[in-house]
Amino acid sequence: MSSTLLSRRDLRFLLYEWLDVCRLTERPRYAEHSRETFDDVLDLAERLAVEQFAPHNRAADTSEPTVSGGRVRMIPQVKAALDVFARTGLLAASMDEAVGGMQLPHVVSAAAFGFLQAANVGTSAYPFLTLGNANLLLAHGSAEQVDTYVRPMVQGRFFGTMCLSEPQAGSSLADITTRAEPQDDGTYRLFGTKMWISGGDHELAENIVHLVLAKIPGGPAGVKGISLFVVPKTLVGPDGALGARNDVTLVGLNHKMGYRGTTNTLLNFGEGVHRPDGRPGAVGHLVGPPHQGLAQMFHMMNEARIGVGAGATALGYTGYLKSLAYARQRPQGRPTADKDPTAPQVPIVAHTDVRRMLLAQKSYVEGALALVLYCGRLLDEERTAPEVTDRERAHLLLDMLTPIAKSWPSQWCLAANDLAIQVHGGYGYTRDYDVEQHWRDNRLNPIHEGTHGIQALDLLGRKATMGGGAGLALLLETIGATVSRAWKADGEAAELAARLGTAVDRIAATTRRLWGSGDPALALANASVYLEAVGHVVVAWMWLEQLLAIDAAPAGVDADFYAGKRQAARYFFRHELPRTGPQFDLLDSLDRTTLEMREDWF
Amino acid sequence: MSSTLLSRRDLRFLLYEWLDVCRLTERPRYAEHSRETFDDVLDLAERLAVEQFAPHNRAADTSEPTVSGGRVRMIPQVKAALDVFARTGLLAASMDEAVGGMQLPHVVSAAAFGFLQAANVGTSAYPFLTLGNANLLLAHGSAEQVDTYVRPMVQGRFFGTMCLSEPQAGSSLADITTRAEPQDDGTYRLFGTKMWISGGDHELAENIVHLVLAKIPGGPAGVKGISLFVVPKTLVGPDGALGARNDVTLVGLNHKMGYRGTTNTLLNFGEGVHRPDGRPGAVGHLVGPPHQGLAQMFHMMNEARIGVGAGATALGYTGYLKSLAYARQRPQGRPTADKDPTAPQVPIVAHTDVRRMLLAQKSYVEGALALVLYCGRLLDEERTAPEVTDRERAHLLLDMLTPIAKSWPSQWCLAANDLAIQVHGGYGYTRDYDVEQHWRDNRLNPIHEGTHGIQALDLLGRKATMGGGAGLALLLETIGATVSRAWKADGEAAELAARLGTAVDRIAATTRRLWGSGDPALALANASVYLEAVGHVVVAWMWLEQLLAIDAAPAGVDADFYAGKRQAARYFFRHELPRTGPQFDLLDSLDRTTLEMREDWF
Repeated sequence: MSSTLLSRRDLRFLLYEWLDVCRLTERPRYAEHSRETFDDVLDLAERLAVEQFAPHNRAADTSEPTVSGGRVRMIPQVKAALDVFARTGLLAASMDEAVGGMQLPHVVSAAAFGFLQAANVGTSAYPFLTLGNANLLLAHGSAEQVDTYVRPMVQGRFFGTMCLSEPQAGSSLADITTRAEPQDDGTYRLFGTKMWISGGDHELAENIVHLVLAKIPGGPAGVKGISLFVVPKTLVGPDGALGARNDVTLVGLNHKMGYRGTTNTLLNFGEGVHRPDGRPGAVGHLVGPPHQGLAQMFHMMNEARIGVGAGATALGYTGYLKSLAYARQRPQGRPTADKDPTAPQVPIVAHTDVRRMLLAQKSYVEGALALVLYCGRLLDEERTAPEVTDRERAHLLLDMLTPIAKSWPSQWCLAANDLAIQVHGGYGYTRDYDVEQHWRDNRLNPIHEGTHGIQALDLLGRKATMGGGAGLALLLETIGATVSRAWKADGEAAELAARLGTAVDRIAATTRRLWGSGDPALALANASVYLEAVGHVVVAWMWLEQLLAIDAAPAGVDADFYAGKRQAARYFFRHELPRTGPQFDLLDSLDRTTLEMREDWF
Repeated sequence: MSSTLLSRRDLRFLLYEWLDVCRLTERPRYAEHSRETFDDVLDLAERLAVEQFAPHNRAADTSEPTVSGGRVRMIPQVKAALDVFARTGLLAASMDEAVGGMQLPHVVSAAAFGFLQAANVGTSAYPFLTLGNANLLLAHGSAEQVDTYVRPMVQGRFFGTMCLSEPQAGSSLADITTRAEPQDDGTYRLFGTKMWISGGDHELAENIVHLVLAKIPGGPAGVKGISLFVVPKTLVGPDGALGARNDVTLVGLNHKMGYRGTTNTLLNFGEGVHRPDGRPGAVGHLVGPPHQGLAQMFHMMNEARIGVGAGATALGYTGYLKSLAYARQRPQGRPTADKDPTAPQVPIVAHTDVRRMLLAQKSYVEGALALVLYCGRLLDEERTAPEVTDRERAHLLLDMLTPIAKSWPSQWCLAANDLAIQVHGGYGYTRDYDVEQHWRDNRLNPIHEGTHGIQALDLLGRKATMGGGAGLALLLETIGATVSRAWKADGEAAELAARLGTAVDRIAATTRRLWGSGDPALALANASVYLEAVGHVVVAWMWLEQLLAIDAAPAGVDADFYAGKRQAARYFFRHELPRTGPQFDLLDSLDRTTLEMREDWF
């Protein structure tokens, strides 16, 4: 099967030639697996993506969900696709066999899910939200909660959501006002309004399981008083039977620029429209201990953030492949050197500037995919490495990389989609081609699950300083290890290693300089510039890693593929990495321009 | 009147304090004018924009034009707004009084039109296309053609189009195949298909005047055999009366991602559906001598390209003002230093990263507006400077700046719109706010009237080498004059002047290095990088120019306005100009990465 979603050849390279995923099967958790089962899952996901998800991608955009009679209506292809998806069991790809999972490595399931996101990011969102919800309950819920909610989610009967934001509290979760009042029977009643809830209402499943952040009256102020509750749309009896409708009401749908297939809702909890037992309030069950909601949510949030990066990567990747296919078949103009107007036109891929736009895309999307899969691999290390120190290192490194894995693809794979439009020329601006939708869909990714600005504060303000800088030291040491290996390799890898080594030194020096200022407001004033610079260095590292894997490949096989990888690596080091020079210079100057700008000067 | 379209205070600064537009009234052509008449025109345009254009901007996007029964249907507000526009006489703002114009300086009419573009770029396109068409006929048409077509356009009775592209020939105009067969009566009959024709069909006016590129059989191959024809939708008799329908048929509308209010059409000429006299072929009239079509069209194209830059600027500018207004009223979070969750939330403009996004937008859109108005001022110099050498210099400088004035705002004011969305957070991704539409609308600008890649080839391949490099030398000398003035000014201007001087030297050295390679394919391989680098230097120059104008302002008046300008200038020099360093480095290395990438390596 060959699609324009993701490149199977690239996945083979990344999974088997670079990340050596097959070695994971030596571990007890994955002992049942083999390269064959991994490939089967990738085949399955790609076929599902091509046959069930891609065909209605445009229709789900054109005919977005609507509300009538308080019910959400959407095109039937969404449910049809998700029903097939549920039957594949892919939702539980990486879950324990005990709850019906396949126990696949995360890195493999991330690759498999990439096909679905590339094919139809709007429809894919429903199972991905459900997966995040289920993983959170598996980590923090009681056995009863797992039985009641997770098992039906794994079976595709229930879908899940995450209810964090409120109209007055988006980035600032400290300001949520939804309250949860304890009841005599140990349950809670929730009252409040939640905004931006993706998948918050629909009729795709028998039930919707909301995970809701709320405050128990009398608790601490701010984020320390936030607890997590499971609030089903329809109450579930002890036998698993569906009962009365819970007091959760759909207020309305948000109308977005892209990602339109996914309902995005404003929900009222405890409005009193549905009163399961005659009393108002949405029935909720506390997850874990009280006042731990934000920490629990962040457990899931790291995965969700890497998932956002993965989705951005998938959209960038398919846009790249589609613009490549277009460039190979669209005749236009002649090479610079050929002035003869009677000569036949050449395909636009023959023009250097078009190759520049394709090579830039290739360097972004393959670099981003490498980063996302590297993070998936770290997740597997974190959970299954035989040595506890390896698990801890993987955990720390993953924590460090999360804001980058979220933001970098959101920024640069969006840039890739912009280039994919540009390669198509005027055609790319029409809805006859997919690339404009990918660009619109991808524009959500720098916003949700924490904006770029939030990720920047997370990286520089929290991650770079945690444990006295232990996370940053580990990241730089890990990159440094690649640099050292490359030094010993052929001439080109050594040359690129020297440049990467310099960039790594700059991260260390700049971080010291910023925090050495003794002024947090000044240190963080240009955190977004820091995030961008460190992100580019990290992706350059991913390219040097790939280059080393190419060096290890047998000569003469798939020479074009490896030559293309090499050229993309060169492109990234020559055209992209140097962008970071002025960024580090700016940071080192302790620039006060944005800090000193006053509101009344605008 | 205060709107969120463009800033009147900024326009006052640019027109009167910086460009000294009032001095133009010393010239005979503008002797009837004064600052009062200029301000009256700006008032008129702003009111028209606010009252007639802005209110249906969203509706024109949501309810795009459709075809039924071969006729184009669109929301009635478009025609209502354009009827009011026609009554204002603004279309002919800068035209001669002899044809019913106001004889305003171009720089003033460009500023006035900016309001309309900011309010509703889709509706604005109809008169702007008409204006380009009329100007071309005024420059190259016969007196009879001017009487027959231009006068009704000035009156708002006829609208105009430009018909260049064909399905197989977009960027490559050499490959058009529309043919024009000479007739015994001196007219021509046209046969062919034209693609991407904006305003190509509608019922907004009594008639549509198409200016069509076509080849007269037997002429030279390629671009040297292209001629220009005026082809009305409905034939016009010698007395100006409308006659039979010409053989021009609407095949269909293109469905775009943005800019939806403007019909964009596929037109057939000479299909035989309408036969004015029983014979097939669309009746056309040659404009000027045969085989001069491309040169004539380029005369208009330079204005059209600067107009694209102006439109991109207007969209960027209004997005900036809207995101600023949003940031001032949206409460969210607290300053970094304030950890008290019970303190009230602050407006997001208080967050440094939000100020960064606003300051970046300000530096882009005010820099772009300065560039566009500077070009308008050059157009006035070119046409009315008392000394012929000044007119020639203005012409040469304008020629040099055109690809930059087209591309730079198209790239960076689109980036501004991206930041405007980001400032709005999740709300910016919904269709409840304007900024997502501005972003979609603005995405057309890097494509039409010559893509970025085409502008890059124009700048480096044609403009930088024309006249033995005379145009480039003039540009650098002109920037150098600003640098010299700034040297003599206060400390900060001198400091920025030093940085700009270095950048100017790099342009000169890099251009020599590229063409010194002796290999045009290599020199042009990274032409897009050259375009971006030179563009940033030119806009830095615009900021230094503004800084010098601020230095000349009286102390104590409008201190906040000037402080904001200064800070935006600093932002551009500190955060933006340094981006060019690695770009010049790359160009100086004669980088072969894109050139050597092979198609089968992708």
